[in-house]
Amino acid sequence: MTRPRLGVCYYPEHWPVSLWREDARRMKEAGLDIVRLGEFAWSRLEPKEGEYDFAWLARAIEVLHGEGLDIVLGTPTATPPRWLVAKMPDMLAVDRNGRVRKFGSRRHYCFSHEGYARESDRIVTALAEHFGRLPAVVAWQTDNEFGCHDTVESYSAAARAAFSLWCRRKYETIDALNRAWGNVFWSMELSGFDDIDLPDLTVTEANPSHLLDFQRFSSDQVVAFNRRQAEILRRLSPGRAILHNFMGSFTAFDHHKVGDDLDAAAWDSYPLGFLERSRNSEEFKLRYMRVGDPDYQAFHHDLYRGCGRGRFWVMEQQPGAVNWAPWNPAPAAGAVRLWTHEAFAAGAEVVSYFRWRQAPFAQEQMHEGLLLPDSQPAPALDEAARVARELETLGPVTASRADVALVFDYESVWAWDIEPQGEDFSYFELVFAFYRGLRRAGLSIDVVPASAEAIANRAFVLAPGLFRADPALVGALRRSGAAVLLGPRSGSKTADFQIPPRLPPDRFRELVDVTVTRVESLRPGASVPVEKARGRCCAGEKNSSLRRA
Amino acid sequence: MTRPRLGVCYYPEHWPVSLWREDARRMKEAGLDIVRLGEFAWSRLEPKEGEYDFAWLARAIEVLHGEGLDIVLGTPTATPPRWLVAKMPDMLAVDRNGRVRKFGSRRHYCFSHEGYARESDRIVTALAEHFGRLPAVVAWQTDNEFGCHDTVESYSAAARAAFSLWCRRKYETIDALNRAWGNVFWSMELSGFDDIDLPDLTVTEANPSHLLDFQRFSSDQVVAFNRRQAEILRRLSPGRAILHNFMGSFTAFDHHKVGDDLDAAAWDSYPLGFLERSRNSEEFKLRYMRVGDPDYQAFHHDLYRGCGRGRFWVMEQQPGAVNWAPWNPAPAAGAVRLWTHEAFAAGAEVVSYFRWRQAPFAQEQMHEGLLLPDSQPAPALDEAARVARELETLGPVTASRADVALVFDYESVWAWDIEPQGEDFSYFELVFAFYRGLRRAGLSIDVVPASAEAIANRAFVLAPGLFRADPALVGALRRSGAAVLLGPRSGSKTADFQIPPRLPPDRFRELVDVTVTRVESLRPGASVPVEKARGRCCAGEKNSSLRRA
Amino acid sequence: MTRPRLGVCYYPEHWPVSLWREDARRMKEAGLDIVRLGEFAWSRLEPKEGEYDFAWLARAIEVLHGEGLDIVLGTPTATPPRWLVAKMPDMLAVDRNGRVRKFGSRRHYCFSHEGYARESDRIVTALAEHFGRLPAVVAWQTDNEFGCHDTVESYSAAARAAFSLWCRRKYETIDALNRAWGNVFWSMELSGFDDIDLPDLTVTEANPSHLLDFQRFSSDQVVAFNRRQAEILRRLSPGRAILHNFMGSFTAFDHHKVGDDLDAAAWDSYPLGFLERSRNSEEFKLRYMRVGDPDYQAFHHDLYRGCGRGRFWVMEQQPGAVNWAPWNPAPAAGAVRLWTHEAFAAGAEVVSYFRWRQAPFAQEQMHEGLLLPDSQPAPALDEAARVARELETLGPVTASRADVALVFDYESVWAWDIEPQGEDFSYFELVFAFYRGLRRAGLSIDVVPASAEAIANRAFVLAPGLFRADPALVGALRRSGAAVLLGPRSGSKTADFQIPPRLPPDRFRELVDVTVTRVESLRPGASVPVEKARGRCCAGEKNSSLRRA
Repeated sequence: MTRPRLGVCYYPEHWPVSLWREDARRMKEAGLDIVRLGEFAWSRLEPKEGEYDFAWLARAIEVLHGEGLDIVLGTPTATPPRWLVAKMPDMLAVDRNGRVRKFGSRRHYCFSHEGYARESDRIVTALAEHFGRLPAVVAWQTDNEFGCHDTVESYSAAARAAFSLWCRRKYETIDALNRAWGNVFWSMELSGFDDIDLPDLTVTEANPSHLLDFQRFSSDQVVAFNRRQAEILRRLSPGRAILHNFMGSFTAFDHHKVGDDLDAAAWDSYPLGFLERSRNSEEFKLRYMRVGDPDYQAFHHDLYRGCGRGRFWVMEQQPGAVNWAPWNPAPAAGAVRLWTHEAFAAGAEVVSYFRWRQAPFAQEQMHEGLLLPDSQPAPALDEAARVARELETLGPVTASRADVALVFDYESVWAWDIEPQGEDFSYFELVFAFYRGLRRAGLSIDVVPASAEAIANRAFVLAPGLFRADPALVGALRRSGAAVLLGPRSGSKTADFQIPPRLPPDRFRELVDVTVTRVESLRPGASVPVEKARGRCCAGEKNSSLRRA
Repeated sequence: MTRPRLGVCYYPEHWPVSLWREDARRMKEAGLDIVRLGEFAWSRLEPKEGEYDFAWLARAIEVLHGEGLDIVLGTPTATPPRWLVAKMPDMLAVDRNGRVRKFGSRRHYCFSHEGYARESDRIVTALAEHFGRLPAVVAWQTDNEFGCHDTVESYSAAARAAFSLWCRRKYETIDALNRAWGNVFWSMELSGFDDIDLPDLTVTEANPSHLLDFQRFSSDQVVAFNRRQAEILRRLSPGRAILHNFMGSFTAFDHHKVGDDLDAAAWDSYPLGFLERSRNSEEFKLRYMRVGDPDYQAFHHDLYRGCGRGRFWVMEQQPGAVNWAPWNPAPAAGAVRLWTHEAFAAGAEVVSYFRWRQAPFAQEQMHEGLLLPDSQPAPALDEAARVARELETLGPVTASRADVALVFDYESVWAWDIEPQGEDFSYFELVFAFYRGLRRAGLSIDVVPASAEAIANRAFVLAPGLFRADPALVGALRRSGAAVLLGPRSGSKTADFQIPPRLPPDRFRELVDVTVTRVESLRPGASVPVEKARGRCCAGEKNSSLRRA
Repeated sequence: MTRPRLGVCYYPEHWPVSLWREDARRMKEAGLDIVRLGEFAWSRLEPKEGEYDFAWLARAIEVLHGEGLDIVLGTPTATPPRWLVAKMPDMLAVDRNGRVRKFGSRRHYCFSHEGYARESDRIVTALAEHFGRLPAVVAWQTDNEFGCHDTVESYSAAARAAFSLWCRRKYETIDALNRAWGNVFWSMELSGFDDIDLPDLTVTEANPSHLLDFQRFSSDQVVAFNRRQAEILRRLSPGRAILHNFMGSFTAFDHHKVGDDLDAAAWDSYPLGFLERSRNSEEFKLRYMRVGDPDYQAFHHDLYRGCGRGRFWVMEQQPGAVNWAPWNPAPAAGAVRLWTHEAFAAGAEVVSYFRWRQAPFAQEQMHEGLLLPDSQPAPALDEAARVARELETLGPVTASRADVALVFDYESVWAWDIEPQGEDFSYFELVFAFYRGLRRAGLSIDVVPASAEAIANRAFVLAPGLFRADPALVGALRRSGAAVLLGPRSGSKTADFQIPPRLPPDRFRELVDVTVTRVESLRPGASVPVEKARGRCCAGEKNSSLRRA
């Protein structure tokens, strides 16, 4: 049970010191009481190698806390400074065309570069030692939006070496790897782990087992990078919540696994920022242009509540037009208030707006905040203040376990990206279509990983399109007594990305009466006829059945 | 006169030895009597450099032949193993963006790399010496699907050196090359053959003469690569048919010229695998989704019968859903039987299904076979067996020469790719449109190269869109007495890709009364108006005339 | 006051000497009296390093002048020969993917390569010394179509070094640059000018201030390159007009600034060559397919008259089908005559057709001329001759200053390319929409730069979408007494690409009553609803107001 709190993201390094106190006063006046700081400030925290300058941040914390605001500190590792890149140029990530991803924006590091990981340890340690026990500091955010700008996978020399090691640990012998991948197929057999290339720039598609392992590896590198920070922070800043701000719809790494090392999950909610690029119809987009897809936020609240094992924040809440979509409409009047209340209703502990004042410079100068660049109020300020007043009249948030669990499995995203049923097939869309249906039926839903623990004690478990029939999961489902709904392609592959010897749906046969049925088009208004998406039995079993225990 | 035979592609290296005999027995039971083996098995035939392991293949041949099956052996050069790439990394092809095409799938070699060509000689020699005189072995397939995955052109250092040499042989002096290419145009004149770059990554389009010569060179490299294998096989495995399995619609090298070094042509017929990406209308695609474009197979049968000078096989016949199209429908019931009979009706000596049992691993695990991965029959097995029974009641195949010859000229493909009449112009589509018309008129057709020999003794010769008026061809047409139908752009260029001094249609004037006429849109349903495709006289003469001798 | 003259582009190096005199005679007979020569002939003027061969050009000039034709000489720097590239391979430009732009067409040099700039000095000096005082030579053209084939920006090592120096000169201290760019935003702060990278291949978009400065730099490099040639020519060939042939719609460098170093502007008018790729509707394109967009030529005549401070030529006038559009229709009968008269009516001193005789070889062999490749007349020859006769009856051209000035500002193109209001926003289209409206109202228009001088003494000044409110311009507008019409996004940024402290429209508030209004879609027939393009106040002020003095 926690009291819902409103917060805001603030960048004291962007503004004259003379503005800080007045900003803090106005935040408090608007009903905000938590402020995120520091996640992009490395070049100010360490202007030259080893020369820390923490005084300005200490001063900012003092001013904000003096007005009654609590602080969330971000680790600045999403923005390694120029001098660090000059020191170790091979820390830069490499894209799938072999091009180095240059300094000049953010997230330019390769997760597999041990030198950079040590730099990350160093700056996080220094910050945690300096600020970790301040009463003002109530939480930490690790890095910022892992995976943003397609940065999970890197094709650098560091990534190649780390992937080889990862394979060695997983398979122990190269023969085991050759068998698991089926490398005999096109004489792709390897003589040793040093032979392993990254699966980019192959003449035609790489082996799907190779691709899936590379994605698992890439995800594991993110998990490991985050864990190193979390362990330092937990040791040096005890009692503070450790979070990471995930981005919705990003699926290149396993958010559940990163969440396992956090105290609570957080996500950045931009209801208008991704609608234009979604697969929805033009009509749908026009209808929801200024309020957002009504199920999209709900889905992610339910997902990240699961990632945080019941605890989640909205670390960045859209307060006005954003700057990155093809067109960026202003939210409808009242939309910001609606989104905020919706997050709390889903169990959010904190909703924090991004950002306090619109920056007049650099990449996001067209991203609105609660204030205009000249400090006049933007429309969202009043909406936030109104929510703050309304929260006074509401009780604390209590998380409860839903009867209905909907499984969202990151490995299945990767599997079906590698080998979709048809070109327009999307595992995310499949799960989301089930989610929409459940919402329409008025149900409360937990979005959960494909684990025995997560599906225990449910009345109804939906697990559409799981690429493999994990024995533990199947056993738990069988024992659970829950009604189980599977979907197309369930159990089509083994963990190694092979067709299972018992043929799809493999062990799910223990749960369901398999009948091959016609599947409806998952994409509203898609002109591709359903029949096109039909394969035959082991070329993509369609199995959809409801078993009542 | 040959008796039609059914065959299948089989990969003993993918399965336990214990399955081989039962597989062989079931093949024979289904009426198959020829089996292709070995074309991707290099890593098993030579696991380490110089350490051959031919025993397993000898055993497989023995088992299969023991059940009465004849063997076609494939040379494994489409899949050079990892150790070979480690030994000579510069054997890898380079794409037109300068990126090395990495190991990890197949066809990663550069046709111009002499070191790799010697490795090809070596493995082919070893195989031919070991297996070439076995009674079981009735034919050889060289390599596999030359050109698949856009692999004819390579922009490697080896290709650059070889192209320079090719130019030196063709032109003898650099002045001759400068004149032929018109290099004076933009000060592109070269001082020596070492100056010749490959025509990639130029600021704007490269000289069309340069591009055409590079395509001729690239095609010649394929021809030479194939010829080296054919000569070894012919010497060491006398009396066996030497074939190559071409892919339809692949036009980057001259199939007629490769065919000249073979005993018979073969092609891989996947009626559903290319329809989705064709230029046909959505309505057309929906209509033929599960049976294929009715003229597409026919065209290629007629083309490869020409490439094989009367003899052709279908080396791979689609038996179920394939794995590579955007959507992969299952064939309609009876479609596999239909396709098989159609091939025999067009003169095929053998129709061989790809593949016996669906592989549960690697890139093509969603490609169906005659058996499911668990050895249960897939639908096509019954259809194949029924064809086998029906063949018993039919007589042998007799090839006959058609009265109607339709010229298909690979150089014209390249010329009009380099300089299309309009963006949507396709020489292949142009010829195919003529073909459809002839089929609708109920005619039997030979698709032939633009040679005097091929058009001799015909009643009707159609030669749409030949880019140049070859004097020998024009003379033969004039003397032949055949009715001749030309089409748009005929004779628009010289062999050097220049506008001919006599202006288009150049020497074709000797055959036809040139009248510039309105040409109908070649693309069904195209919204681009015909007038757009109009140039004027020498900017693309439209000439279409029927001369009766 | 000058007498309108007709000219033609001629390439004696493409033809036998024996043709030259007859060509000259026929030119004169057709009423042409000016000929452009030499702009692509470097490999003939200097076949080997330092070995000049000017005799053939001297002979050609003599023959042409002997028939009464005046000569414009082009400097050949758009086509550096192969031996020069071999000598300094790093002179090649590099594209935004890091790929070297190879020899084999034209414009392969990097504007920032000092070694190449010296080679340019050398060949221009040699030509000017040899031909500069010949009575036959009446004008010079510098280089050819700066920017063609996307060649303004280069990402070479030379460009990086030059950009660093440019930044040093502009900002003097790195702190000033960091502030101007707002580099604090994502820890992008630099420690010194050597830290400055080019803004390509960043993980997500580069800083817009960085991008704008890089575009300014790239433009300045073109200006400097042209100026070096102009200064040499002015010194060694006194009294001759120095021109450059700009291409319409090319906006990557500032044509006004290059124009400042010229005696007159020239442009290459291809009414049919860009229509297909324009944003117009299919219906519009069909309607104007063979005559061209009726406002397009007019706009560019008015623009280049401004670039030349009242003096302009059409250096290349389309006489038939061109070769580079997706489809290349032939001009309608009479269109060539119409275009020519239109140019003279707009004040052109010379209209010169490209080209005399269609080349039968190389990249532009499908580009028609006044003659077919076999020297027979193409349709345009008669049209040109008819214009020549008609010109006899007309008086000299007198340039007059229009009451209406429409501002076209290259920096605003760059600013709104970097940060468009919505994905379909185009500054060029915005200005052009205003221009169409003025033409429909029957007004004469000067298209001018955003300078105080250019807008002086006008009754009506339209300045749609200027990205910044330059104080000098605002002052001049205020004092001018002209009616002023601004448009959306005016004054949205400072010169440094920041949101101005006074918020948009910044200083334009001194001119207009700002009222945020609904803006009509700028793209005819666009299906994107207007509301999508709406931001709010500082996210892109919409201000549109008419002030009468």
